[in-house]
Amino acid sequence: MIITDSLLDFFIETREQTEAICAPLEIEDYVVQPIEDVSPPKWHLGHTTWFFEEFILNVFLDSYKTYDEDFSFIFNSYYETIGERVIRAKRGNLSRPSVGKIYAYREHVDDHMKILLEKVNSGEVLEILEIGIHHEKQHQELLLTDIKYILGNNPVFPKYSDFYKENEIEVTEKEWISVEENVYSIGHKTNEFCFDNELSRHKVFLHNFQISNKLVTNAEFTEFIDSDGYKNFELWHAEGWDWVKQNKIKAPYYWHKIHGKWHQYTLSGLHPIDMEAPVSHVSYFEAFAFAQFKNCRLPTEFEWEVAQQHFSWGQRWEWTESAYLPYPNYKKAKGALGEYNGKFMVNQKVLRGSSIATPIKHSRPTYRNFFHPHLRWQFTGIRLAK
Amino acid sequence: MIITDSLLDFFIETREQTEAICAPLEIEDYVVQPIEDVSPPKWHLGHTTWFFEEFILNVFLDSYKTYDEDFSFIFNSYYETIGERVIRAKRGNLSRPSVGKIYAYREHVDDHMKILLEKVNSGEVLEILEIGIHHEKQHQELLLTDIKYILGNNPVFPKYSDFYKENEIEVTEKEWISVEENVYSIGHKTNEFCFDNELSRHKVFLHNFQISNKLVTNAEFTEFIDSDGYKNFELWHAEGWDWVKQNKIKAPYYWHKIHGKWHQYTLSGLHPIDMEAPVSHVSYFEAFAFAQFKNCRLPTEFEWEVAQQHFSWGQRWEWTESAYLPYPNYKKAKGALGEYNGKFMVNQKVLRGSSIATPIKHSRPTYRNFFHPHLRWQFTGIRLAK
Amino acid sequence: MIITDSLLDFFIETREQTEAICAPLEIEDYVVQPIEDVSPPKWHLGHTTWFFEEFILNVFLDSYKTYDEDFSFIFNSYYETIGERVIRAKRGNLSRPSVGKIYAYREHVDDHMKILLEKVNSGEVLEILEIGIHHEKQHQELLLTDIKYILGNNPVFPKYSDFYKENEIEVTEKEWISVEENVYSIGHKTNEFCFDNELSRHKVFLHNFQISNKLVTNAEFTEFIDSDGYKNFELWHAEGWDWVKQNKIKAPYYWHKIHGKWHQYTLSGLHPIDMEAPVSHVSYFEAFAFAQFKNCRLPTEFEWEVAQQHFSWGQRWEWTESAYLPYPNYKKAKGALGEYNGKFMVNQKVLRGSSIATPIKHSRPTYRNFFHPHLRWQFTGIRLAK
Amino acid sequence: MIITDSLLDFFIETREQTEAICAPLEIEDYVVQPIEDVSPPKWHLGHTTWFFEEFILNVFLDSYKTYDEDFSFIFNSYYETIGERVIRAKRGNLSRPSVGKIYAYREHVDDHMKILLEKVNSGEVLEILEIGIHHEKQHQELLLTDIKYILGNNPVFPKYSDFYKENEIEVTEKEWISVEENVYSIGHKTNEFCFDNELSRHKVFLHNFQISNKLVTNAEFTEFIDSDGYKNFELWHAEGWDWVKQNKIKAPYYWHKIHGKWHQYTLSGLHPIDMEAPVSHVSYFEAFAFAQFKNCRLPTEFEWEVAQQHFSWGQRWEWTESAYLPYPNYKKAKGALGEYNGKFMVNQKVLRGSSIATPIKHSRPTYRNFFHPHLRWQFTGIRLAK
Repeated sequence: MIITDSLLDFFIETREQTEAICAPLEIEDYVVQPIEDVSPPKWHLGHTTWFFEEFILNVFLDSYKTYDEDFSFIFNSYYETIGERVIRAKRGNLSRPSVGKIYAYREHVDDHMKILLEKVNSGEVLEILEIGIHHEKQHQELLLTDIKYILGNNPVFPKYSDFYKENEIEVTEKEWISVEENVYSIGHKTNEFCFDNELSRHKVFLHNFQISNKLVTNAEFTEFIDSDGYKNFELWHAEGWDWVKQNKIKAPYYWHKIHGKWHQYTLSGLHPIDMEAPVSHVSYFEAFAFAQFKNCRLPTEFEWEVAQQHFSWGQRWEWTESAYLPYPNYKKAKGALGEYNGKFMVNQKVLRGSSIATPIKHSRPTYRNFFHPHLRWQFTGIRLAK
Repeated sequence: MIITDSLLDFFIETREQTEAICAPLEIEDYVVQPIEDVSPPKWHLGHTTWFFEEFILNVFLDSYKTYDEDFSFIFNSYYETIGERVIRAKRGNLSRPSVGKIYAYREHVDDHMKILLEKVNSGEVLEILEIGIHHEKQHQELLLTDIKYILGNNPVFPKYSDFYKENEIEVTEKEWISVEENVYSIGHKTNEFCFDNELSRHKVFLHNFQISNKLVTNAEFTEFIDSDGYKNFELWHAEGWDWVKQNKIKAPYYWHKIHGKWHQYTLSGLHPIDMEAPVSHVSYFEAFAFAQFKNCRLPTEFEWEVAQQHFSWGQRWEWTESAYLPYPNYKKAKGALGEYNGKFMVNQKVLRGSSIATPIKHSRPTYRNFFHPHLRWQFTGIRLAK
Repeated sequence: MIITDSLLDFFIETREQTEAICAPLEIEDYVVQPIEDVSPPKWHLGHTTWFFEEFILNVFLDSYKTYDEDFSFIFNSYYETIGERVIRAKRGNLSRPSVGKIYAYREHVDDHMKILLEKVNSGEVLEILEIGIHHEKQHQELLLTDIKYILGNNPVFPKYSDFYKENEIEVTEKEWISVEENVYSIGHKTNEFCFDNELSRHKVFLHNFQISNKLVTNAEFTEFIDSDGYKNFELWHAEGWDWVKQNKIKAPYYWHKIHGKWHQYTLSGLHPIDMEAPVSHVSYFEAFAFAQFKNCRLPTEFEWEVAQQHFSWGQRWEWTESAYLPYPNYKKAKGALGEYNGKFMVNQKVLRGSSIATPIKHSRPTYRNFFHPHLRWQFTGIRLAK
Repeated sequence: MIITDSLLDFFIETREQTEAICAPLEIEDYVVQPIEDVSPPKWHLGHTTWFFEEFILNVFLDSYKTYDEDFSFIFNSYYETIGERVIRAKRGNLSRPSVGKIYAYREHVDDHMKILLEKVNSGEVLEILEIGIHHEKQHQELLLTDIKYILGNNPVFPKYSDFYKENEIEVTEKEWISVEENVYSIGHKTNEFCFDNELSRHKVFLHNFQISNKLVTNAEFTEFIDSDGYKNFELWHAEGWDWVKQNKIKAPYYWHKIHGKWHQYTLSGLHPIDMEAPVSHVSYFEAFAFAQFKNCRLPTEFEWEVAQQHFSWGQRWEWTESAYLPYPNYKKAKGALGEYNGKFMVNQKVLRGSSIATPIKHSRPTYRNFFHPHLRWQFTGIRLAK
């Protein structure tokens, strides 16, 4: 357990970081929701605040009165326990509460959190506080990827910041790392924070395998495109192939061919693609098809976890072949907090690692991210195994 | 033809009125599009401006350079002649250009319009100018109804203005006006402005009919609800009945039953319904079913035009039984301006009169409005005939 | 009123004709429903029989017991008054009752109808009988067009009959018939049978117009295709243009380009198109666009009715510019029979004339057919006016 | 490798068995496709025949000429390699080729298979023959479940056979079987036939677990219903909960409450539910929610395979918690045969065991069946683990 002081600092620093991410936005950018998977930035600001109000202030701070009943309705996400919620696809229809009102709500809740945390440091409060901080960090990452989507789908391609670097090149030589067949232990083991889906730590038998020390680059992926990889159904899952045909997919998301040359929308605007940078914004379907094309495969999440100490990671969320399923003896928490992870354990693939959008102190070797196999708006990437 | 000076005044006054309508809005309210039929207010601001730039400044002002090529793409509406356009359903995804930039665009175009109109007063320019002004007036009405929709669908029901009166009571006694069978002339006849769909003036034979001097009230419509009018398929068109069942329609739009009592969202907020005020926000399907319930019918647009001098109108757009079709010898204009009316002459019903949201100088007895039969977000009403 | 004897003959002859239409079918052809608008032939056989059982035998023949309660559920069409019905789109899911059982049902009902009609000849019975016969004749036409759709959409293009002639050439010279401006009487006037939508007979003022004495031919329509008529949005309604783009429409229905040459599926199989025959299987949208292309228009239904004595008709149902609306003083019948026509009087266009699929004794100058503007599976055609 | 003679017998016996399954059908039952997942019986008859023609006769029998080119188009299923195919959802639109023609096709292909197999017994032919036989056995199971769906969704509930027993009671006492933590070998190991997805045999570490010796009964599932299991979102995956709400799921498929008592449609008609029989026609979502309700879980497919020798199975396909994924070193076959399994390895759950509809010689402890988690038309069941 982290002690109160540093947890309070961690809380304040996290709350500030969320607002720093939004600093470059125009008011208008906070409001829109171009697709269901992307939430308006103002919703992220409100929802992360509501979490602290609902699960901490309303429960543990005696004098506290709910800031505004309507906010509970609007900023609830998927917590069915708490009550009716605004349908996810309709968040972008709500112009009110205004951005200004939501910042005021943040300030109000932060002030009361400080009051509470000066008085109360029960284990129960601190445990939920820690979850709330990590919950907000998850939303920081979504915030950045949602902002990218909002700006990157605008026909005028506005930039977010001149200084945001998405694409760092891995300079090491490409090589295969070999791991020997054995029984390995998988899952979180330290006393530090983790989500329920990283537990319990358990044993997995792995056969011999090899895994690449580098992410697949834009140059390699361009070879796939140029070899008609998007037109060869033999490389794809049946559902992947349907997805390609129905959506006329021809390249990773944010790629635009302009005067015969591939460009990529990034948070610093539209630029020619850097061919040595790792490919990004690919779906699991594309990652799988690319691996087939190379006569390789994607690693399982267990292979990744065992091998990860032998390569550097952190630029791209890396698709694995593993389905998102509970570990042996998985226990979900009681009540609304229990809705956090377990209820999504069907029809999703696990991603491992972290991305350039992941906040500091929010990645670890056992972290399990998960998305539906067709999604591409995250900073996803590909690492091959065989 | 109106002379230049007064037309310039008319232009300026119209442009100012559009901005006055938006004055009570928060920036966020300008951006959203909760349903496809409702456009974001900032889109209306840009689109009406683009009309003057595209059809007047780009054509008639030699020195003029297009303000921003992206705006042509974004603020084009349905004018297929001009080029690709942002799909109507996706206007609410665009956070940029910002509201501030659009106001700057308006100012820029207005300044150049004034420069042009000091030098040029050819009949051709003035004719398009007049169309542009009336086009903007149409958008003023849509702006107000779209704003009502945006605010009225927000769970916090924000008010637009404390002073906007939607619901004035008609104090006269209800009576039937009788009109004799005869051949009547229909369509616009003066030298003043009209749209192409009001021409040519032509003859129509009308049989004897009677028409009410008053609009149907909320009290009368409540009787329809209380008599299970929404549950009795015999009163409805087959398509109307499907619409009722599929959308679970139980009352006019903006009606909410709170603690057993009907309330109505209005531009001044959520209030108990004034039973003596004319019913509003009903679809053609509801208007038809209500008329069946009363053993009456809706008037045709021709009956309405002939009888209108005998009653007062102007609170509600009034549904008629007439389909929106061309008059004999209808001619649509050449090029993009020709796309204005004729291409919508299928599957829509004619509405006559005008509403409390209609700008001044924008209503006349021959004006033909038209909407699909299921739409309700306009200030629509019901007048019976038999 | 037709006297009983001849009406009984008319009944028997009509019932036999329905079965004659089905004679060339395989059992399997009776079952399928490739699109919602097309009903399985066995459904037509059952539904027309159910009409006589439900509205005549169950009401007027004392000793009669319903043949099978399930049939009432299955063979009811849109008569909401009678009770729940099989959703129209799901008729093709029902393999039972088998074709054999339905023929037995027909025989049973016919036998009892004969028993009844020997005893009873009240005006009320005869009136419903006459409606039932004409109802079955309408279904005979649908049966033939639905059979054409079922066979014509099969990749092996089976023929229905070697002898069915769809495409007779009009040999007269093309010329414009002129009609003078005047008040004309419209609607049914004799004592013979008509549907409620042909009444009341009423006056209509018509301006001077001209109408073609011939239907548009395949050669003329091919000129429209070759002139990129399907690619020129200026010729189309906005909804028509959306329909063309969404469905990738490039020619009339049943046209197939094989080795560079247009072929047409007909009831006698797939053949090269006869260029002099009248075009068929076009939607209202296409008819309108073609008229625009020729700088003409479609006639109104009133113009058609007044002019029809001056040209021959009966090969194609002819699209008119008129929306399907009630005539002055239209009264719909009470109860289930009242659902026959009036409830469809929105969003549909009137077609006049009749087609090569129309049964004898089932066409007259005042007959009003109606379809949604995008439909093409009927033998529809185009006659121009100006 | 099985020797030729017995393989030819196996072929003939399998082909005969397919036709025996169809014997009780009316011609009409062969044609319909009420939902996309269900194929018309005549399609199964043609498709299994086409497999032998396409992959054996066309390749290995010199003199052989394709029976009918259209059949290749129509009876191809998902084999993208072979060419365009009839869209799966549209199989029920095809009345031709007739059932009689398809039986003739079967006979023709069988005759030529016998000719071929008298002359040729190369390993390659026999290998494909064996796959073809097992392919047809898979379709025998689908045929029966599709027939059940076709008849069970008909409002008259026709029976398939008086003698088909779906619901045998497991008479043993319920108890938990304990399995010790260890490394186990998983996958096919004998020389007999298996599908590619059962290979390669590999090691899996299993922790201690317990598994029930009996399937969940209708009585136990009724307790779940009566305890509002379908109304308690805490028991469900988020996607499962959406599925329940959207489809208004309230009981297993084929359950009907009649006069307050649960009935079940079976192949022998509609009967009151036998409470001691194993529950059937539940989705994975329901199996998971039921396990949550009992504070248990579903077994993984590996647990099932290791424990299966300790209990009897074969009545219900049993949902597992495992996602359908490739085993280590999985290799898919080249060409069209390679499309058989691997391309479905995403978004599906594994089922183990077999059902009362599974043909003899078509079940084994390593067999992996797979379906999307919402599907219920198979004879699926639930076995609990903890």
